[in-house]
Amino acid sequence: MSTTIDPADGTLAYDLDRAHVFHSWSAQAALKPFVIAGALGSTLWDYDGKEYLDFSSQLVNMNIGHQHPKVIQAIKDQADIITMVAPPHANLARGEAAQRILARAGSSFGSVFFTNGGADANENAIRMARLTTGRDKVLSTYRSYHGNTGAAVVATGDWRRVPNEYARGHVHFFGPFLYRSEFWAQTPEEECARALHHLERVIQAEGSSSIAAILLESVPGTAGVLVPPPGYLAGVRELCDKYGILLIFDEVMCGFGRTGEWFAFQGFDVVPDLITFAKGVNSGYVPIGGVVISETIAHEFDTQVFPGGLTYSGHPLAAASIVASMDAMADEGIIDNARMIGTDHLGPGLAELAAAHPLIGEVRGMGVFWALDLVSDPATRAPVSAAVIGELKGELMKRGLLPFAADNRIHVVPPCVITPDEVARALAIYDEAFTAVEAV
Amino acid sequence: MSTTIDPADGTLAYDLDRAHVFHSWSAQAALKPFVIAGALGSTLWDYDGKEYLDFSSQLVNMNIGHQHPKVIQAIKDQADIITMVAPPHANLARGEAAQRILARAGSSFGSVFFTNGGADANENAIRMARLTTGRDKVLSTYRSYHGNTGAAVVATGDWRRVPNEYARGHVHFFGPFLYRSEFWAQTPEEECARALHHLERVIQAEGSSSIAAILLESVPGTAGVLVPPPGYLAGVRELCDKYGILLIFDEVMCGFGRTGEWFAFQGFDVVPDLITFAKGVNSGYVPIGGVVISETIAHEFDTQVFPGGLTYSGHPLAAASIVASMDAMADEGIIDNARMIGTDHLGPGLAELAAAHPLIGEVRGMGVFWALDLVSDPATRAPVSAAVIGELKGELMKRGLLPFAADNRIHVVPPCVITPDEVARALAIYDEAFTAVEAV
Ligand SMILES: Cc1ncc(COP(=O)(O)O)c(C=O)c1O
Ligand SMILES: Cc1ncc(COP(=O)(O)O)c(C=O)c1O
Repeated sequence: MSTTIDPADGTLAYDLDRAHVFHSWSAQAALKPFVIAGALGSTLWDYDGKEYLDFSSQLVNMNIGHQHPKVIQAIKDQADIITMVAPPHANLARGEAAQRILARAGSSFGSVFFTNGGADANENAIRMARLTTGRDKVLSTYRSYHGNTGAAVVATGDWRRVPNEYARGHVHFFGPFLYRSEFWAQTPEEECARALHHLERVIQAEGSSSIAAILLESVPGTAGVLVPPPGYLAGVRELCDKYGILLIFDEVMCGFGRTGEWFAFQGFDVVPDLITFAKGVNSGYVPIGGVVISETIAHEFDTQVFPGGLTYSGHPLAAASIVASMDAMADEGIIDNARMIGTDHLGPGLAELAAAHPLIGEVRGMGVFWALDLVSDPATRAPVSAAVIGELKGELMKRGLLPFAADNRIHVVPPCVITPDEVARALAIYDEAFTAVEAV
Repeated sequence: MSTTIDPADGTLAYDLDRAHVFHSWSAQAALKPFVIAGALGSTLWDYDGKEYLDFSSQLVNMNIGHQHPKVIQAIKDQADIITMVAPPHANLARGEAAQRILARAGSSFGSVFFTNGGADANENAIRMARLTTGRDKVLSTYRSYHGNTGAAVVATGDWRRVPNEYARGHVHFFGPFLYRSEFWAQTPEEECARALHHLERVIQAEGSSSIAAILLESVPGTAGVLVPPPGYLAGVRELCDKYGILLIFDEVMCGFGRTGEWFAFQGFDVVPDLITFAKGVNSGYVPIGGVVISETIAHEFDTQVFPGGLTYSGHPLAAASIVASMDAMADEGIIDNARMIGTDHLGPGLAELAAAHPLIGEVRGMGVFWALDLVSDPATRAPVSAAVIGELKGELMKRGLLPFAADNRIHVVPPCVITPDEVARALAIYDEAFTAVEAV
C-alpha cells in the first residue's frame, strides 16, 4: 500500500457507483461491486487497507502489473507534451508504438492500425479481410469472445452473441477442446485431426469462395484457456491457404506475455495475416487496441480507401504507454518470467492442487494463463453450479485473493510479473478455499 | 510553445508514421501527414516551431483546448493512484464522472454506461433501445456519422456506410437542411414541417411497431453543422411518443460546449431517452465515451441482464479527466464563452466573410460549431470541387491555421476556450486564404 486511504472514500465510491454507474453484462439491481482503492504490482487493496493478490489481472489485461513506475512516468511525461492528436496527423509516440509492436510481430507484418480496445480491433480486422478478399463470411468458434460491437459480438461464439445477432456474414464452428470434445476424440492427436476435418467440412459446406476470414483466439481465453493441441493452428493455416481465406488471430487476451511469448501464436509455429491486440499491449493503463496488418494486406489499401476509422486512433497518451510498457517488458525479462512461472510454478502447483481436490476436473494453460475446470462429478465431468463458483469466490476474497471466474471455472491469470513467492501464497489460498467449499 | 523541440524528432515522427502507421478513412500511399509537436490552448506547433491556430479542435473534440493544466494535473494525480480498474468493480473516479455527467444531463436521466469512444456509445445505446422496446429497426438520417463499428457504421448515413453494410435493422431518412432541401421547401418553417411529414411517412411505411429508436445527432456535425430548424427536434420527440419509439441523441460531436450548451439538445427544448457522448466530455485527453440512460430505461435492466460490455468501461484515468474537465468548464465559464463567441464573434465575423467571398454559399452554426458551405455557383449552389478545398487547406496552413474540411465545406470549429482575439486573427486568415484561392 503506497498511498493514504480514507475508508469514507470507499463508502463514497460504492454509493456513487450504485447510484450512477451502469455495469457491463449484468442485471443492475443486485450488484455489490468490490471497491478498489489502489494497487501496485500484483497486489491491490480496498479502503480498509486489506490487500489482495490480483489473480484476475482485472479483465486479464494487467500483464505488467499495476502501476509499473516506468509506465506511469511515461504517461505523465506524455501528458506534459500532448495527450491527443487526430489520426490524420502524425505524432512521435504513435509512430514509436507501431514500430515496437511490428518489431515483435515478425517480418511479414507491415503496418499497425490503432483502435480503442479489442472489439473495434476485431471490427477493423474483419473489415480489412472482407475488402481484401471481396468475400463476406467470417468463421469463428462457438467457444470464443471477440467484443461487444456489431460484428465483434456476432463473431463471438458464447451466449453474449445471442441477444445481439444483428450482423450478417458470421458462421460458427467447434474448435478443439479434448476435455469436452465435440468430436468423440480420446487423444490430443485425434481431437486435432477431427477438429480440422470438421472445420474443412464447414468451409466446404458454407462455400469456400464465400469466406473472407477465419477469426480465432490463438488460445481461446474467456471460453476456458483452451490451449490448442499441437498442429491445430498450423492445420488451420493450411486450410486458409488451400481455400484463399485470410487468417486473423485475436491476441487481445493471449498476447503480450500472457502465454510466455510476445504473441501467443509464436509458440505454435504459425503466422496469421492479421493480428488483433489490446489489453496486454499496455496493460490497459490507457485504453488502446489495434490490428497488426501483413505487408500484403496493407498494400491493398495503398490506393484503395480504407473505410474505417475512429477519433482516438493512435492516441499519443496511450501510444506512449505502449512504448514504455513494451520496453520495460523487454528490459526486465517480464515475458520470460511469465513463461518460467508457468513451467516451474503454476503448472506443477495447479496440478498438485487438482490432485488434492476432486472439484477440479482439469487444469489447462501455460505461462500466466490457466483455467481450473470445476466439476461436480469427475466421471461425467458435469460442471459445478453457479452457487459453488459463488462460494469459492467468497472464500478466495476472504483470504486476500481477487479471482477471475467464468462459467464453471476459475481462471488463474495473475500479472506476468508475479513472483514465485506470490504464486506460493496464492496456491495456499486456493487450497484453503477449495477445502472450505468442499467441507460444505 | 512551452517545450523544447528538436526538428530531427519531427523527421523521425514523419518517417515512423509513413513506415508503420495505418491511417483511418484513407488510401495510404499518397498520405503526407502533418506532424504535431506540441500544443497549448487553441494553439499547436510543428517541429520547426511554427504555430497554428487549431480551428479543427483535432476531430472536433478538443473543446477545453489543448493541455489544460487542471486536466493534465488530474491525469497525473489519477496515474499515481490507479490507472485501470475492471468494470465489475467500483472506483471513485468512475462514480464521480458519472455523477458530474448526470448532474448536467437533467433529472430524467438515471445512469451512465461508459465506453471507449463515440462508436461503441452508439452501439450500446442501440442495444438498450432494442432490448427495451423488443423492436429491431433503428432510423437515422442520411446526413449523419455515428462511428465505424458494426451497427454504428450502418446507422451512419454518409458514404462510409456503403462499403460496410453488414448489419440489419437500419433505415435512413432525410433530415431538415433548408440550403439543400430534399423537400422543395422555401422557409425554415416549411422545411421543418415537411421533414417531419417525411419522417412520419417513413415510420408508417416501415411499420411503426418495428421501430426501436430514432438516432439523431442533435446538431449533425460532420455532415455540415446542420442546425435543426425551430420545432424539428420537438416534432421528432412527438412522433416518438406517438409511436412508442425511443429517441437517442448522438451528442458525441455537438455535446459539452460545442453549441454553447452542456448538451446541444438543451438549446432546443426537448429531452431524449438516451444520450451518447465522447469527444468534448474530456476533450479526448484519454479515450472515453458513453451513454446517458433515462431512469426508465436503466430500470429495464434492474433484473434483466444487459448483454453488452467492454474491458475499459469506466476507465479511472479517463474518468478522472472527465471530472477535472467538467469542473474546469464550469469554474471557468467555458461553455458560456463558447456561446458568447458564437453570438458576438464567429457569427457576425463569418457572415462578413461570406459577404466578401462568393465561394461561400452559406454560413451555418452556433457556439463554436460552424460550417462554410462552399459553392462554385451561388445560384445553383453547386459544391466546389475537392481541388478547391485542397488549395484552401494549403493556404490556411501556410498562414498558421489548422482547418477542418469535409466534402465541399470548411468547418470552423475551434476549442470552446477560443478568445475574441484569436477569432479575429483566424477570420483575417480565412479572409486572406479565400482571396488567394479566388485569385487562381
Ligand atoms: C479475445 C478477446 N477479444 C476481444 C475482446 C474485446 O476487447 P475489449 O473488451 O477491449 O473490447 C476480449 C475481451 O475480453 C477478448 O478476451
Ligand atoms: C456525431 C458522432 N457520433 C459518433 C462518432 C464516432 O466517435 P468515435 O470516433 O469516437 O468512435 C463521431 C465521430 O466523429 C461523431 O461525430
